[in-house]
Amino acid sequence: MTLVAAPARLSTAAASFEADFAARLHWSADTDAAIEQRVADILADVQSRGDAAVLEYTQRFDGLHAASVAGLELSQDELKAAFDGLPAAQRSALEAAARRVRLYHEAQKRASGESWSYRDEDGTLLGQKVTPLDRVGIYVPGGKAAYPSSVLMNAIPAHVAGVQDIIMVVPTPQGAKNPLVLAAAYVAGVSRAFTIGGAQAVAALAYGTATVPKVDKITGPGNAYVASAKKRVFGTVGIDMIAGPSEILVLADGTTPPDWVAMDLFSQAEHDELAQSILLCPDAAYLDAVQAAIDRLLPEMPRAEIIAKSLTGRGALILTKNMEEACAISNRIAPEHLEVSSRDPHRWEPLLRHAGAIFLGAFTSESLGDYCAGPNHVLPTSGTARFSSPLGVYDFQKRSSLIEVSEQGAQTLGQIASVLAHGEGLQAHARAAEMRLKS
Amino acid sequence: MTLVAAPARLSTAAASFEADFAARLHWSADTDAAIEQRVADILADVQSRGDAAVLEYTQRFDGLHAASVAGLELSQDELKAAFDGLPAAQRSALEAAARRVRLYHEAQKRASGESWSYRDEDGTLLGQKVTPLDRVGIYVPGGKAAYPSSVLMNAIPAHVAGVQDIIMVVPTPQGAKNPLVLAAAYVAGVSRAFTIGGAQAVAALAYGTATVPKVDKITGPGNAYVASAKKRVFGTVGIDMIAGPSEILVLADGTTPPDWVAMDLFSQAEHDELAQSILLCPDAAYLDAVQAAIDRLLPEMPRAEIIAKSLTGRGALILTKNMEEACAISNRIAPEHLEVSSRDPHRWEPLLRHAGAIFLGAFTSESLGDYCAGPNHVLPTSGTARFSSPLGVYDFQKRSSLIEVSEQGAQTLGQIASVLAHGEGLQAHARAAEMRLKS
Repeated sequence: MTLVAAPARLSTAAASFEADFAARLHWSADTDAAIEQRVADILADVQSRGDAAVLEYTQRFDGLHAASVAGLELSQDELKAAFDGLPAAQRSALEAAARRVRLYHEAQKRASGESWSYRDEDGTLLGQKVTPLDRVGIYVPGGKAAYPSSVLMNAIPAHVAGVQDIIMVVPTPQGAKNPLVLAAAYVAGVSRAFTIGGAQAVAALAYGTATVPKVDKITGPGNAYVASAKKRVFGTVGIDMIAGPSEILVLADGTTPPDWVAMDLFSQAEHDELAQSILLCPDAAYLDAVQAAIDRLLPEMPRAEIIAKSLTGRGALILTKNMEEACAISNRIAPEHLEVSSRDPHRWEPLLRHAGAIFLGAFTSESLGDYCAGPNHVLPTSGTARFSSPLGVYDFQKRSSLIEVSEQGAQTLGQIASVLAHGEGLQAHARAAEMRLKS
Repeated sequence: MTLVAAPARLSTAAASFEADFAARLHWSADTDAAIEQRVADILADVQSRGDAAVLEYTQRFDGLHAASVAGLELSQDELKAAFDGLPAAQRSALEAAARRVRLYHEAQKRASGESWSYRDEDGTLLGQKVTPLDRVGIYVPGGKAAYPSSVLMNAIPAHVAGVQDIIMVVPTPQGAKNPLVLAAAYVAGVSRAFTIGGAQAVAALAYGTATVPKVDKITGPGNAYVASAKKRVFGTVGIDMIAGPSEILVLADGTTPPDWVAMDLFSQAEHDELAQSILLCPDAAYLDAVQAAIDRLLPEMPRAEIIAKSLTGRGALILTKNMEEACAISNRIAPEHLEVSSRDPHRWEPLLRHAGAIFLGAFTSESLGDYCAGPNHVLPTSGTARFSSPLGVYDFQKRSSLIEVSEQGAQTLGQIASVLAHGEGLQAHARAAEMRLKS
């Protein structure tokens, strides 16, 4: 049977466009009540029984037997050995990627993650102190979809932020360890690593056990159990966003080789049948050329079946009136990945208000950003770029306001606070301010 | 009957300290299953029936009748009239507070909220674009605990961030409007305001109705229904933290007048019987003096009953070995409000790692920060200052990564990405990078 990748062909000029487009975009993060209940039970069990519960679930779900949770810890020597055992090309690629990711996040810290303060004329000091979290947990999926790049993208910003303890958890079903993942943990400076996963790993990190230290925040992707567990422990610890299926939106002016754009759409589609790849272009002939490239290149792809299902089920090639309209549609979608595959990307970039990451120009394939350009590849999905941001150094820092009111400042501020506090019926607030006034 | 405010007297030297201290700190955000179900139903109903459902719930819960949701909108004229009708002292206090809050948040935006970028030697551009959210919703509680200062603290950072549409919702039970709240909305630059509240208001903002526009994020405090609704719509829209009871921790070296510290403890305790006020000091005589001040000042307070219950039920005066130990205990608590009531606050400030806001020196009463010092009074509670931050301009902005790989850069990055993508079994990612390599 020949595989066919047939993204929907839409045109903004068609009367049915709004309805067709809405149908393509539709995706619902429906939660499964059975999973929810199972996860609630696991969390409660780990919270009350600690290590013993973690051991049992690891045995049951991952088929991994150990005498104690300490036996599930990976030593730094083991991480280093994994790195040393890699082919030289993988070693240097990991190191080069880590170096670039580190440089970018260091720039991010300098630009937006430093403490600041100023003094009023009356000597009152106001500011904000920025400090790293003490300890964070990083969830790394195991099994088939084991991504060493995720280790770098989660651990390095934490490291740059100044987090002292970075605890990695990674399930190893039947004990199968992924050497690239272990090597990435070594390169990224992970402090400790445990071969545990699922809701039980999230619970161990959130509540702490005798062996697994309690963390302040948990980041990293996972399956439905992990996502549900992270939502439930939110508040006890911080979490990053819960990710939906990955998406790419390409705005093309028709000047990029169609093969390149087709492959960029594939590189999103190969993740997952639910991944979404959309191309917007004002040139119908270019859309034809990209479809032809898709047809020609698909048979070469090892993951052709997933790609075909993803593109046919959720992909779209959309003819727009012009690039301005394409930008407006992009803003409605607020895509995770947004490629501006144009000869003149800086003309369009200012029009783009909502996106996780914006890839400018034909040479900037999304895959370069996924691995090594420097910016983080953990990005807001499902339109959440309207209100949230890439994972960054700021996710591993928190801020404390600093206020030092001078005696003189207390005279001015005390009057204002007194009036407003009385207006709110909070007399102790008013009195506390009034007591600092000179009589 | 004489009211007694008897905070627990603890000493870190006592054998039972850890247990006693843990018992004092214990607070559980138990959710009420009945409320959860009720809120889920309201959200689903508003999502499907829109305005009609909002009208019905407003009538049922707030006793407020209107022919349409449009009839529940407050006009800008009405907001301005509320401001104009205030006593002059309240008008100028509101304006002065708003001005200081605005100045602080403008400094915050300059310090950490601007776009940035840099270029590699090979011409590759990397950076981050910071943009405001398009539209946000601000929940303002109505009824007894109606706080105009909350309007300023939520709306002004949004305004400074550059948010175009700021939609306020405020329940007005039986139609009773609080003129200070309306005036604060006018001063803070709220775009539109509706007299709706509860889960139905959160639903209207999250999903949008024919009359209430859908927002990107909802901030602001509310009761258990509002908190539950915000948690449920998280993901569809952004939300701020779910607040627990308010807390103050005072580190005192014994040099501040005991009356001042007693009143600062009161000003926390008067919020709520569950509010927590803790004083740490290495000087037992000073703790006695503060207790004496509490006993003397309590009868004068209009909210004495709440204060007494809060201090007796959850308050503590703790004798520490020294100030260093007091700082270490403060870090364990990660308090929402932290007063360093010391002659030498800058000696201790560097030791304090986790707190929502740090108030330095005897003149800096928490109440000055609550109303008008400038920093935000929406702060992380219940120890969440370990991983989260005051409400700020950054909560009303989001970031997009910017990547523009030059042709030359694509040669270096393409090799790295290719190796790592093959290592992860993602061949389309590898091919997309390889296609950009010169042959």
